[in-house]
Amino acid sequence: MQSKTNLRDVFYVSDGTAITSETLGHAVLGQFDITTRQMTLPFVESVERANSVKQQINQAYEKTGVEPLVFYSIVLPEVKAIIEQSNAHFYDVLNALVAPLSEDLQLAPQPQLQRSHSIAKDADSYQDRIAAIEYTLAHDDGVSLNNLEQADVILLGVSRCGKTPTCLYLAMQFGIRAVNYPFIAEDMSKLRLPKAIEPYRYKTYGLTIDTERLVEIRHERYANSHYASVEQCESELGKVEAMFRREAIPYLNTSRLSVEEIATRLLDISGLKRKMC
Amino acid sequence: MQSKTNLRDVFYVSDGTAITSETLGHAVLGQFDITTRQMTLPFVESVERANSVKQQINQAYEKTGVEPLVFYSIVLPEVKAIIEQSNAHFYDVLNALVAPLSEDLQLAPQPQLQRSHSIAKDADSYQDRIAAIEYTLAHDDGVSLNNLEQADVILLGVSRCGKTPTCLYLAMQFGIRAVNYPFIAEDMSKLRLPKAIEPYRYKTYGLTIDTERLVEIRHERYANSHYASVEQCESELGKVEAMFRREAIPYLNTSRLSVEEIATRLLDISGLKRKMC
Repeated sequence: MQSKTNLRDVFYVSDGTAITSETLGHAVLGQFDITTRQMTLPFVESVERANSVKQQINQAYEKTGVEPLVFYSIVLPEVKAIIEQSNAHFYDVLNALVAPLSEDLQLAPQPQLQRSHSIAKDADSYQDRIAAIEYTLAHDDGVSLNNLEQADVILLGVSRCGKTPTCLYLAMQFGIRAVNYPFIAEDMSKLRLPKAIEPYRYKTYGLTIDTERLVEIRHERYANSHYASVEQCESELGKVEAMFRREAIPYLNTSRLSVEEIATRLLDISGLKRKMC
Repeated sequence: MQSKTNLRDVFYVSDGTAITSETLGHAVLGQFDITTRQMTLPFVESVERANSVKQQINQAYEKTGVEPLVFYSIVLPEVKAIIEQSNAHFYDVLNALVAPLSEDLQLAPQPQLQRSHSIAKDADSYQDRIAAIEYTLAHDDGVSLNNLEQADVILLGVSRCGKTPTCLYLAMQFGIRAVNYPFIAEDMSKLRLPKAIEPYRYKTYGLTIDTERLVEIRHERYANSHYASVEQCESELGKVEAMFRREAIPYLNTSRLSVEEIATRLLDISGLKRKMC
């Protein structure tokens, strides 16, 4: 039996999707210098399932001799009690904030099963989100420049600078209708804003990226191609950035940003409201 | 000045994307019977920006006479101190768990700016996720049945039962490569598993939906069409479900589930690991 180790088993346990437990657990664990082996156990709503989860946690403990870390959120007291009998350290992801909030609001909490990622909570905004995903897919990669009046945001940039994942994230997470339009090699001789986009320039933003990063990404797709060459990437980026400046289109360098960071920075500079679900 | 109201201004403030603060705030607020007006303020990394946030919070307080609720996560002490001078109730989304975790681990926390949704944390899994999004887009809606050996999961179902948003969520959130294949009206006379999918039946799952819900969704797209009629929807669903049973393909009814719930239930029944980012 090891008495101490920096490899820790981590369990995310919830009576819902466990997405909230995961999100918070990741954020908190990110502050500690440990290595983790993570396991997510959603929809723990019955005594039977709770007993099987308890067994799984105890097995991890027996195997390593080190208490696993359990991030959890469970409403039913009888289910919760079983989980809490496991040999582990427990972190209730909601309770720590529910108590002070209850006091500040002078209201009693009304815990509900599977509340935070369910459809029932706000059916209208849920349908909006699905519609945003459809709109965004239909306007991916310049496929269509119709119905731009319905777009919340239009993204421009060279091929492989991060437009598609950013647009999908905006739609999926925030219910934003996002259009993206790529400038390709053929556009480069006389680069201009597409006519269809001109009337919507107030909601148009550019993405750009460092040459080395673009070369790297394009190489992964088409190794040793002209498309992935330093000369081609540098030339496209130079022309597109010059166009952004000439047309006064605000733009963002994505080289060191995750999709989440690009999306939230775009919301921030555009002042667009998140249509939350 | 109102002394009490159930409409509350809520601010999510962070030196990163604020996604963790939002996720936790939504989950916690969901337990209280209040109406909220929400505002997200990401990338609060400087004293200047902190002062402007403080001003915004104070203005909300002055307007309503009710202290806003601030869910926040900020590393820099001088930035944090400014926010905490606002007229509001404060909920530090990470700290409540960091202290007990630090004690249990006997390790000091090492708070880092913008840690939880940044690219630097785990560049490989980030690239995997981007690759999963590309793969999933290339295999949306039966567009391609090539390279199915690379799929983590294959979803089948009638048109408009939730396949596309589910696949995109699986790719985006969990780095899962998801293929989806729609059965269309023309397939119905002799419905069978597509030949290309047969070898991969072990990773194939069905989605189905209640007739009334499908009629509703299809009507939104093509009102009063044959495609959206009760008869057509009922007939397609009956045939596809019979096929799922005949071929022993596990399936899920999506009528009352959100995309998050469908995706996490699929992971749960398939035993697929989340490839987290």
